[in-house]
Amino acid sequence: MAEKEKIISERQLMEFCVQTLQKAGLPQEDAWTVADSLIAANLRGVDSHGVLRLPSYIRRLLDGGANPKPQIQVIRRGASFVRLDGDRGMGQVVGKYAMKETLELASQTGIGVATVCNSDHFGAAAYYAMMALKQDMIGLAITNAAPIMCVWGGKGRFIGNNPIAIAVPAGKEFPIVLDMAVSNVAGGKVRIAEKKGIKIPLDWIVDEEGNPTDDPNAFGGKTGGSLLPLGYKGYGLGVMGEILSGILSGGRILDEMPLWLVDTSLTVGIGHFMLAIHVDAFIPIQEFKNRADHLVQRIHSAPRAKGVERIYLPGEIEHLSELKRRAEGIPVSEAVFQDLVRIGHELNIGTEILS
Amino acid sequence: MAEKEKIISERQLMEFCVQTLQKAGLPQEDAWTVADSLIAANLRGVDSHGVLRLPSYIRRLLDGGANPKPQIQVIRRGASFVRLDGDRGMGQVVGKYAMKETLELASQTGIGVATVCNSDHFGAAAYYAMMALKQDMIGLAITNAAPIMCVWGGKGRFIGNNPIAIAVPAGKEFPIVLDMAVSNVAGGKVRIAEKKGIKIPLDWIVDEEGNPTDDPNAFGGKTGGSLLPLGYKGYGLGVMGEILSGILSGGRILDEMPLWLVDTSLTVGIGHFMLAIHVDAFIPIQEFKNRADHLVQRIHSAPRAKGVERIYLPGEIEHLSELKRRAEGIPVSEAVFQDLVRIGHELNIGTEILS
Repeated sequence: MAEKEKIISERQLMEFCVQTLQKAGLPQEDAWTVADSLIAANLRGVDSHGVLRLPSYIRRLLDGGANPKPQIQVIRRGASFVRLDGDRGMGQVVGKYAMKETLELASQTGIGVATVCNSDHFGAAAYYAMMALKQDMIGLAITNAAPIMCVWGGKGRFIGNNPIAIAVPAGKEFPIVLDMAVSNVAGGKVRIAEKKGIKIPLDWIVDEEGNPTDDPNAFGGKTGGSLLPLGYKGYGLGVMGEILSGILSGGRILDEMPLWLVDTSLTVGIGHFMLAIHVDAFIPIQEFKNRADHLVQRIHSAPRAKGVERIYLPGEIEHLSELKRRAEGIPVSEAVFQDLVRIGHELNIGTEILS
Repeated sequence: MAEKEKIISERQLMEFCVQTLQKAGLPQEDAWTVADSLIAANLRGVDSHGVLRLPSYIRRLLDGGANPKPQIQVIRRGASFVRLDGDRGMGQVVGKYAMKETLELASQTGIGVATVCNSDHFGAAAYYAMMALKQDMIGLAITNAAPIMCVWGGKGRFIGNNPIAIAVPAGKEFPIVLDMAVSNVAGGKVRIAEKKGIKIPLDWIVDEEGNPTDDPNAFGGKTGGSLLPLGYKGYGLGVMGEILSGILSGGRILDEMPLWLVDTSLTVGIGHFMLAIHVDAFIPIQEFKNRADHLVQRIHSAPRAKGVERIYLPGEIEHLSELKRRAEGIPVSEAVFQDLVRIGHELNIGTEILS
């Protein structure tokens, strides 16, 4: 079922996002950061974390849930770590700040870690992990999130689907980038189905009674529907996400965080955990990259199961999407486009940028 | 179907393991380490990584695959990391050495990391992660392993099921410990079914043609059957395990490692990645522990799905098993017991210790 969509260039979308975010109170540099993280997700084909989210972020800024001008504070600092308070800033602004610190620490001691409390929803975790790539480092980003998943054996929204992203530099090959929620699927995918008005597989969510459902509307808002974890192991990783991002940072966990999409005037208090590894401190970077290339090529050569045309590395499909969309533009569904137009009108921004 | 089993005390099993391992060439202290890691797994109810494995470890020592007296070398060292060469030592000996170094580094800079190449199969990853608990630290251990899993979209053994363990100290509550292979199930579980002669669920393994099978014999030896990854995400985590344990350590990846259980005279060349976080550097330890206790208690109170009597945290079932088995002894199946008797006879060790 083909869905109506527009193709918009990266540059146009970027300009629109920056303008709206500035109108909503962000300084120019921070507006650029948030916009860049959204467009990066769209380019990589991760539309669930792209401009689809802009209206919600704007709403949080306008309604006071997020602080447009945070004073990020260092609470504790050591040779290879820093603990930060994000002062209720946008997750992208706080997250980027934290990963910058992490990379600086790693360049000095081989390893850097930052924990952050009092942040907000930071979008796609890969954005922060991938900041490490320009410095030939391995980056890792974990965040907790307001509860949208049931615990293993439970029902109802009780824990975040706390994503984990890891980015690894390669040589001639593309970087290897894993970005996974610990639920069976990311909440954003359910939202896209909701926007498109299509049914979802039965193992994505359960309704508030804990019963499987193919109706994405059972998940939205305050209905009490919840994502299913990726089995017992996904639940276990989710618990670790709460500990590393929420407890180690001195921040919030579980239902101490309100739903960022719904309670737009409330502080969410999300926490992050960032780690960077300075590869060249461990092993000559060229040796590492050659071996990473070899890993990619070996896996590409693996015998394929029946019906499979090609075997992909983590982040490869996203890399191919980025090449294509940089050249051809970003497809935006009609529903998302109308949301953008609406938020543009509300902020008195001409949406002719988008056409 | 009740299976014949013997109950053997922790102390008896320990003594038997130490004696056999010493006879096979390990120094007493190292024999104790290997035995302790096996008994720790049995106590925690993880029988797939317990004394079931002793005969295979002995075989590797006797056949020359593992070096009983390794000279572990530092290849590189920085303020918060160390890169080690395990000199083909037993994985338990090398792994414990690496985690000790990691904890020492973390006590100084807040974070410690060790990578190790040229090690061997190290048993249950939780053993190393849990070493952090005595020092009120968070521990993480990752290892790669000889290929026993197919890649996503592939068939045949191509990548290890590269386990990840994370251990977190709590206060009044038990420690929170996740120990997961990135396959749907650990290979050891298939082996137990093979020993018991029972069928397995269809999503555990595929045969060499890539077809699902309920016959655990399709997995053993060199039949070419392979474990299934925990979906695309499990495969992605497995790739990261190769990179962190294999490439960053300067070690082997994928099929560069022979099968430790089969090629008992060959160096396996497994790599490990260890990380420790000095909690009290980030946040006062008592505050952290109180919050960890709160997390446990909140999750225990979550609404339960129909038919579920109790919700468990990661590591809780293992903790309850340990309490019970310390008091009552360790059940050992008749098949495993006979393997132990056989290896005892081969080494001229009186098996009356076990009765």
